[in-house]
Amino acid sequence: DTPVGSETVTAAGDQMSTHVITKVIDNVHLIKLNRPEKKNALVQEMYTDIVNALKVAGSDSTSLTVFTGTGDYYCSGNDLSNLANIAPQDIPEMAKQGEVLFRDFVDAFIDFPKPIVALVNGPAVGISVTTLGLFDLVYATDRATFWSPFTSLGQSPEGCSSYLFPKIMGYAQASQLLLFNQRLTAHAACRLGIVTEVFPDHIFQQEAWNRITDFASLPKQSLRLSKQLLRAPERDILHETNRREAALLAERWQSDECFNAIMKFFQSKL
Amino acid sequence: DTPVGSETVTAAGDQMSTHVITKVIDNVHLIKLNRPEKKNALVQEMYTDIVNALKVAGSDSTSLTVFTGTGDYYCSGNDLSNLANIAPQDIPEMAKQGEVLFRDFVDAFIDFPKPIVALVNGPAVGISVTTLGLFDLVYATDRATFWSPFTSLGQSPEGCSSYLFPKIMGYAQASQLLLFNQRLTAHAACRLGIVTEVFPDHIFQQEAWNRITDFASLPKQSLRLSKQLLRAPERDILHETNRREAALLAERWQSDECFNAIMKFFQSKL
Amino acid sequence: DTPVGSETVTAAGDQMSTHVITKVIDNVHLIKLNRPEKKNALVQEMYTDIVNALKVAGSDSTSLTVFTGTGDYYCSGNDLSNLANIAPQDIPEMAKQGEVLFRDFVDAFIDFPKPIVALVNGPAVGISVTTLGLFDLVYATDRATFWSPFTSLGQSPEGCSSYLFPKIMGYAQASQLLLFNQRLTAHAACRLGIVTEVFPDHIFQQEAWNRITDFASLPKQSLRLSKQLLRAPERDILHETNRREAALLAERWQSDECFNAIMKFFQSKL
Repeated sequence: DTPVGSETVTAAGDQMSTHVITKVIDNVHLIKLNRPEKKNALVQEMYTDIVNALKVAGSDSTSLTVFTGTGDYYCSGNDLSNLANIAPQDIPEMAKQGEVLFRDFVDAFIDFPKPIVALVNGPAVGISVTTLGLFDLVYATDRATFWSPFTSLGQSPEGCSSYLFPKIMGYAQASQLLLFNQRLTAHAACRLGIVTEVFPDHIFQQEAWNRITDFASLPKQSLRLSKQLLRAPERDILHETNRREAALLAERWQSDECFNAIMKFFQSKL
Repeated sequence: DTPVGSETVTAAGDQMSTHVITKVIDNVHLIKLNRPEKKNALVQEMYTDIVNALKVAGSDSTSLTVFTGTGDYYCSGNDLSNLANIAPQDIPEMAKQGEVLFRDFVDAFIDFPKPIVALVNGPAVGISVTTLGLFDLVYATDRATFWSPFTSLGQSPEGCSSYLFPKIMGYAQASQLLLFNQRLTAHAACRLGIVTEVFPDHIFQQEAWNRITDFASLPKQSLRLSKQLLRAPERDILHETNRREAALLAERWQSDECFNAIMKFFQSKL
Repeated sequence: DTPVGSETVTAAGDQMSTHVITKVIDNVHLIKLNRPEKKNALVQEMYTDIVNALKVAGSDSTSLTVFTGTGDYYCSGNDLSNLANIAPQDIPEMAKQGEVLFRDFVDAFIDFPKPIVALVNGPAVGISVTTLGLFDLVYATDRATFWSPFTSLGQSPEGCSSYLFPKIMGYAQASQLLLFNQRLTAHAACRLGIVTEVFPDHIFQQEAWNRITDFASLPKQSLRLSKQLLRAPERDILHETNRREAALLAERWQSDECFNAIMKFFQSKL
């Protein structure tokens, strides 16, 4: 489902797990989640792999970076097994590590120096929804849905959504998504401003890649410097928001509310 | 028009005027304007009563607070009799007191620590429109209208709307409401982002309370801390905005423009 | 295409080039681009003339200022001849002058002390699009289009759009306009929040001037002080954004990317 072109698997790609694939296609650097059997849920090594992939993509000679998923899902969010099967005495250490992992992951998007495009090829959950405010373009199939059920899991929003979602859509709408677990269709997400354009599923890849290929031929420095100009006024506040969100999550992971909610989640799956 | 449930009239409710009623219904703290004969226009004691009610609601064990009106109107704004029938030599003192009253009132919403829902059960005017940006969810009947005719009364916007409305909808739309006295329907207010959802009047209470009851059963600390996270980045700027707005209003109340506009308003009612 | 009324050509108007016309009509100060044979493209003296016209309009006794174009176009943006026909050794000096010219031009809108209305009477390009975020009301004919092809010309956004457009519509939409050269219809621009209202072309002038005439009779000080209140929270950040944008443009004008793109543009016109 990627376009024909001169594809080069990067060195970084070779060194990474098979759960995150990277390719260079002409002027485009593609980063693709590849854990379709688990709906592209993110396990720990995938966060690190993505950070590394973004470092490579940001410093090579490509014009644009594209982030997408393999299979039916874009990404089902943080793999909750990251939070389960942990002995009580190990929870504080897990929370500390998770805080750093999440913070570094989101920082890598905040600091990404070129235009970056999300190709939302299916449902998006949790951190894959909340980070959308850090992308420059978001193309979605009409099969995509957007859902971040933080409070029902005893948790709290991340991905800079606590700052960017109210900015993009106002509090009356952002609260529905970030506090009250509302699930959005792709068209609703577009009306609220977190999606750029929605396409019928059967032409999604073609339409999105037509645009990406066109955009990738624009003057590179203009793209890069213009993107940085747009983000400059709030880079500091984004880093500060990220620190605040990650610290609250670490606290939440150690709470009874979160423990009980996660237990209930896994029991409902038995 | 409130739901069946285990209702408890709070101690604070007992001590307050009958113009502001409070009740605890399971996990929900309800604050209800009760001056339907004057379309719930706010006289001085009501501002103080609401501030006190918010203090109680913010510190008790409930999950959510709901703010609404009795009768056909949500709230017709500041009772203009607050500004009339004042001897010229007493105007500066009235302006000084009004500035403090308004500032404390809006500060109580800025600092409110839990999710707070506006149930807009009918037309909203003035400060009951401008404070909507401080609510986390705003449900409106399709009978509701939104109108803040500040400049036609020689006054100026408050409720942090001078900051939040441009943030939510942009200047090209916010100016219509805050400078040029445009009246909005509920659906228009929803498109602009100050209303979360609109319901036909005959199912408004039922639909809104269905959602509120669901939300009130979510993990309390997650709700509380997530709401505070969303508001943290701009708490300082909201307090600063509130001070600036209240100071300008105090100046306006002492101006000939405002005096003449208020006189004209009351004469048109004879 | 202007309304009947007591028109007074201002002294400033008399001293200015015929490319920028100013008139006082009752409480309204009209500033009109008048270079229809070049689609109101802005040459250097027009920037200065507009700055001077805004100074006069801001300090006289009128209530509102209206900015519009003569003929079929609102404004086709910066006249690219400003950037062409320059000997290589003169480019750094041209860039330096252009930076100051643009910065002063945009500063005059940021600091404008009264409500200012854009009457977008036809297509808008470049800096005439990006400055729309600094207007309080934007009325557009349905013939208007909005296009700012910065990156395709090797350049970068100005007019405070790098800050205001993401604030008004979110990054997923703003990037389309400011990085990827998307052209918008008037109705699309209205949905995104940079246009207040769109009218069919044959009633555009009449409908827009009906509103303007009504608004111009509101209490003057209330209008002026309320507008300043709305802009106060971000005046500093707008000036900072303007400096950053103008500096990047000056750098871009000296780049090979920009030189080649401009050359290509003029060759395509032969």
